[in-house]
Amino acid sequence: MEKTSTDAFPFTMNSSEKQETVCIFGTGDFGRSLALKMLQCGYSIVFGSRNPQKSSLLPNGAEVLSYSEAARKSDIIIIAVHREHYGFLTELTEVLKGKTLVDISNNLKINQYPESNAEYLAQLVPGAHVVKAFNTISAWALQSGALDANRQVFVCGNDSKAKQRVMDIVRTLGLTPLDQGSLMAAKEIENYPLQLFPMWKFPFYLSAFLCVFFFFYCVIRDVIYPYVNGGKDSTFRMAISIPNRVFPIAALTLLALVYLPGVIAAILQLYRGTKYRRFPDWLDHWMLCRKQLGLVALGFASLHVLYTLVIPIRYYVRWTMKNRTITQATAKREDPFSTSTAWLSDSYVALGILGFFLFVLLGITSLPSVSNTVNWREFRFVQSKLGYLTLILCTAHTMVYGGKRFLSPSSLIWYLPSAYVIALIIPCIVLVIKFVLVLPCIDKTLTRIRQGWERNAKPTLNGERYLKQSSVHLDSEL
Amino acid sequence: MEKTSTDAFPFTMNSSEKQETVCIFGTGDFGRSLALKMLQCGYSIVFGSRNPQKSSLLPNGAEVLSYSEAARKSDIIIIAVHREHYGFLTELTEVLKGKTLVDISNNLKINQYPESNAEYLAQLVPGAHVVKAFNTISAWALQSGALDANRQVFVCGNDSKAKQRVMDIVRTLGLTPLDQGSLMAAKEIENYPLQLFPMWKFPFYLSAFLCVFFFFYCVIRDVIYPYVNGGKDSTFRMAISIPNRVFPIAALTLLALVYLPGVIAAILQLYRGTKYRRFPDWLDHWMLCRKQLGLVALGFASLHVLYTLVIPIRYYVRWTMKNRTITQATAKREDPFSTSTAWLSDSYVALGILGFFLFVLLGITSLPSVSNTVNWREFRFVQSKLGYLTLILCTAHTMVYGGKRFLSPSSLIWYLPSAYVIALIIPCIVLVIKFVLVLPCIDKTLTRIRQGWERNAKPTLNGERYLKQSSVHLDSEL
Amino acid sequence: MEKTSTDAFPFTMNSSEKQETVCIFGTGDFGRSLALKMLQCGYSIVFGSRNPQKSSLLPNGAEVLSYSEAARKSDIIIIAVHREHYGFLTELTEVLKGKTLVDISNNLKINQYPESNAEYLAQLVPGAHVVKAFNTISAWALQSGALDANRQVFVCGNDSKAKQRVMDIVRTLGLTPLDQGSLMAAKEIENYPLQLFPMWKFPFYLSAFLCVFFFFYCVIRDVIYPYVNGGKDSTFRMAISIPNRVFPIAALTLLALVYLPGVIAAILQLYRGTKYRRFPDWLDHWMLCRKQLGLVALGFASLHVLYTLVIPIRYYVRWTMKNRTITQATAKREDPFSTSTAWLSDSYVALGILGFFLFVLLGITSLPSVSNTVNWREFRFVQSKLGYLTLILCTAHTMVYGGKRFLSPSSLIWYLPSAYVIALIIPCIVLVIKFVLVLPCIDKTLTRIRQGWERNAKPTLNGERYLKQSSVHLDSEL
Repeated sequence: MEKTSTDAFPFTMNSSEKQETVCIFGTGDFGRSLALKMLQCGYSIVFGSRNPQKSSLLPNGAEVLSYSEAARKSDIIIIAVHREHYGFLTELTEVLKGKTLVDISNNLKINQYPESNAEYLAQLVPGAHVVKAFNTISAWALQSGALDANRQVFVCGNDSKAKQRVMDIVRTLGLTPLDQGSLMAAKEIENYPLQLFPMWKFPFYLSAFLCVFFFFYCVIRDVIYPYVNGGKDSTFRMAISIPNRVFPIAALTLLALVYLPGVIAAILQLYRGTKYRRFPDWLDHWMLCRKQLGLVALGFASLHVLYTLVIPIRYYVRWTMKNRTITQATAKREDPFSTSTAWLSDSYVALGILGFFLFVLLGITSLPSVSNTVNWREFRFVQSKLGYLTLILCTAHTMVYGGKRFLSPSSLIWYLPSAYVIALIIPCIVLVIKFVLVLPCIDKTLTRIRQGWERNAKPTLNGERYLKQSSVHLDSEL
Repeated sequence: MEKTSTDAFPFTMNSSEKQETVCIFGTGDFGRSLALKMLQCGYSIVFGSRNPQKSSLLPNGAEVLSYSEAARKSDIIIIAVHREHYGFLTELTEVLKGKTLVDISNNLKINQYPESNAEYLAQLVPGAHVVKAFNTISAWALQSGALDANRQVFVCGNDSKAKQRVMDIVRTLGLTPLDQGSLMAAKEIENYPLQLFPMWKFPFYLSAFLCVFFFFYCVIRDVIYPYVNGGKDSTFRMAISIPNRVFPIAALTLLALVYLPGVIAAILQLYRGTKYRRFPDWLDHWMLCRKQLGLVALGFASLHVLYTLVIPIRYYVRWTMKNRTITQATAKREDPFSTSTAWLSDSYVALGILGFFLFVLLGITSLPSVSNTVNWREFRFVQSKLGYLTLILCTAHTMVYGGKRFLSPSSLIWYLPSAYVIALIIPCIVLVIKFVLVLPCIDKTLTRIRQGWERNAKPTLNGERYLKQSSVHLDSEL
Repeated sequence: MEKTSTDAFPFTMNSSEKQETVCIFGTGDFGRSLALKMLQCGYSIVFGSRNPQKSSLLPNGAEVLSYSEAARKSDIIIIAVHREHYGFLTELTEVLKGKTLVDISNNLKINQYPESNAEYLAQLVPGAHVVKAFNTISAWALQSGALDANRQVFVCGNDSKAKQRVMDIVRTLGLTPLDQGSLMAAKEIENYPLQLFPMWKFPFYLSAFLCVFFFFYCVIRDVIYPYVNGGKDSTFRMAISIPNRVFPIAALTLLALVYLPGVIAAILQLYRGTKYRRFPDWLDHWMLCRKQLGLVALGFASLHVLYTLVIPIRYYVRWTMKNRTITQATAKREDPFSTSTAWLSDSYVALGILGFFLFVLLGITSLPSVSNTVNWREFRFVQSKLGYLTLILCTAHTMVYGGKRFLSPSSLIWYLPSAYVIALIIPCIVLVIKFVLVLPCIDKTLTRIRQGWERNAKPTLNGERYLKQSSVHLDSEL
């Protein structure tokens, strides 16, 4: 239900309900926004302030008292003050004993302090129940009700009753509380709003590098070489022709890099004879951002599709085709039809379409709401089986594109092979290793290792019945 | 987990569990459907009826008693009766004291009554705990188990224990309860199932107006003018050529209208010198339906892409190109290649593709499940930074399309400029104002205002430490 | 919040919290993975084993005791042992009295045993509170933290306190608990991870059959016939031309099959005069997999779009067009422009684009996260109204494609009509029946039946006020 009408929420209260009083320490922007919202939702608000004067900025209906007076009026106190100013709370330890303190603060940098603000608050006021909440919500969103982005409020705390009460408030404000467990989670919750796509950084930089590298590679072959060798101005190729080489190369390479860490991990496990030793950190990180790598690859593949489909409406292509036709017509000469060329051209296109289609399917199943409806067996089927099929189709698409020219020396320009030949290296390596890994003899060993067997382990404990995890728990294929 | 097999749910009960009895007042269609479903899920059902005769319509296994007898058998009573007939419940006040009454009713119109049905029920039977639930579920969906649409059951109520018990029942029936807070939320919950895309109305009518207007504008220029000036029948252009002008114009205009309210709001805030005065209602509403405007624009952009890609397979285009070639071949004349035309044509197409690609990205991030996985900083980055980049690319695409003809008087027909020139007005205004707003001197003032600073405010209270909201809480950019 | 950093979770505990002890029976792979994860999240772990020797495989920090000693140390005991070995638990009945037993086991086959493992466990140890959980999570996912697929842990159990405690543990591990109700749900939860797209089987086999049938049908007409009648080698058509006939036919047929069960059900209800008799099982199953049928149809439609858009870049098409132009140029003959052909060609293409556009809209609204944001009225509007509009557009697209050749005898080859003619049969039947059903006289009767009226029912009970469900509860249209 879209809470689009929360603004219109009745200011008047249902008389049958007793108004719950919430105290807010600090009268800054976020504190006031929160107060306004809570007043609208039927709470009564008391501000705690060092200098308790009624300010015109504060929402109507809210009281302003001194810290200790305000604290006495409510069991729940929202600390809308920066961490650096938490000091004054130590003087209020007595008053705050047993009360629920809600820490809503954020920092300016990730991991700015050794401990989270909420844990620091819990140390300052040992008798109180500290709950972390609301830090992921923006003041503007609270005011406007336009919570398009994220209605989720992460809540954590050690006292489950205090946490429950805060979650009830969150719910009453039309937001979605998410219980994140104990106060230990506060650090992560405080870092969360400061992150800017942390898992996308490696895929982004990698693909930027690939694009720049292959762009200049193609510029050398397609623009500089013809200019040097004939004074031909082919700069216009940089708008479509060259991007349409760079994008498919980046897509294929990134797609192969999605599956490469899996085969490396399998080789490592086979070599070590156990799955209980940690992978190197770079491999771990690589494995965790495979989804992002795949989605970036899908983006490039989509661009390649669009760039390819507009080919016939480009001026250059139309001009070339027209002039070729005119030349032949003038010479009264017709090309004979070549069935093999028709086969090559059509199967190249068909492989590309099918590969792209499967790729889009993979992308759709990685949408959070879709992947939540599939179980592990289904997820693995899609991401592993369909994924490899996509890689095979796209690799074959690139190979058939090369067709008869593939690896022929005449396509070398200044000793540089065509760009698509370079793009094929990693996919072919991945597919060859994967092919070796699924050979029955190797696959059997690998499966045993992934079920927990160890090559150098002592014989299993006598008589112990291990839970050999069936089906699901087995699915450790990477 | 898809509850596809709920139909096959065991009718027999696990004997170790005691059957909970639920009472249903009213034997209408929805009451019976609910009863059947609850019987299947292991509840025992007692119908309360004015005329307690066993009817063949009622599901097997359910008892039928008088209202007061039925009420005595259970703590939970589902009121499956229309609001107009709630009157008889006043006679049962004694029996219903302390019981949980579940109001499942809907109205025929939005805001039909001054108070919600559930609040009315609570007034009629003051001693009972009224819980609103189940009104968003259809009887047919309950019977068939085909709950493709929405398994969500909004629940609200003032007594948290009563609410909890109802939510447990909801869960047992395989549905998802969503706690909406106190009974005050009942009105919204009752209005919910009566809405038909309320936020889409303005974008829909606006885009319908744009389409009709530009369609006739183009018909005048492309069909009526050639007919009047040469008797040429160009009516076939109304199928593809003219829609392919109307759609991109509508897309670009709507996209600009997504960003226009933001810059208007910024100007208002700068002018007023505070962010604490409400925007006019029209601006508020406009801001709240920006997402819908953007998605409609994306729809038009997608249509434009498809209409553009089919150009080369249209009979008209093929005929034109063939005849032009034949004419030239007969005259034995070849066009010289124009590098500048190739640049214009290719960069026009490339800008369009990149703009559309970013537009689709924006659309994907507005999917609820995707936007729930990003934080405010990431959401703002995508919707604001990428959004403006999309607008810039699409505006440039339209400008380069005009190319050399842009604003040339020869393209006027009956004093009407080309349609794309009109389409550029709003985007250019938005981009120019936005450019002014991001100039450092203006941006600084705006940022201070959005952090809560007021131009005409009294000096801040002496010694008060405001919570100057860092990063997230700042992100009030519109 | 992506829990990507759970691996880095602090091993050290916040001293203010008391460590909760959890006991795990069985030291297999999944038990050890779970133990490691729980140790990382601050639990203290005791393994129960028949042969309590410290093994190097067990995670550091975990104790190993005999079953009964281990059980005495904790209130929560996770049974990480196969169902076949549950026998030893009967000896521990005394120790386990009142404790929470968490059944995490899976089977190898769906419905392998008459009762679920969890219910069997509850019978073996009658004094304990059995909770089913964790069976949908893979050991590898627990270790790596790469829970891309599914963080959902289905939990069920008869004792709500025990269930609540297990759900708290699930939450602390960074997973999402989903309360599935009483232990009766265990069977479904145990079957869940063994399923491989159960609802997709029928659509998959049906579409495979359609594709194979129409592929060979088209091969006969387009490859074998020209070869037999002229020795022409058209085999290359099997790569693109023939798939581009098969895919749209499969798409249109499957789309019609989405709406066929609805009209069959309506006819059945009209014939029977009641909605209270169950539909035959085949109809029920068909209705439940309509969404999947529609999505498969959308897949084929997308392939058709891609295969159509690449037409102008195929060698065969370019060669044909070039040679036709050369022939005409040599003969110095120009085709006259045919407005009617232009209309046919453009409206055929425009209908296809609009139909596909609506089809994609339908697909997007069937995404779980999108369909959760619409209410029943909106969902029905989209799936029924827009759905039929899509069917009408796509059928019209196919008919206009036929154009002048439609049903002309000259298009018969070996008495076989064109494939698209066959594809039109089911859509036309569905549209004709639907047209009859929405005639006012029939629609009125149907609506009354769907509101619960029965043709042969006894007169309604005197004075009873039925809940005539308004708007939402009415929406029983199929």
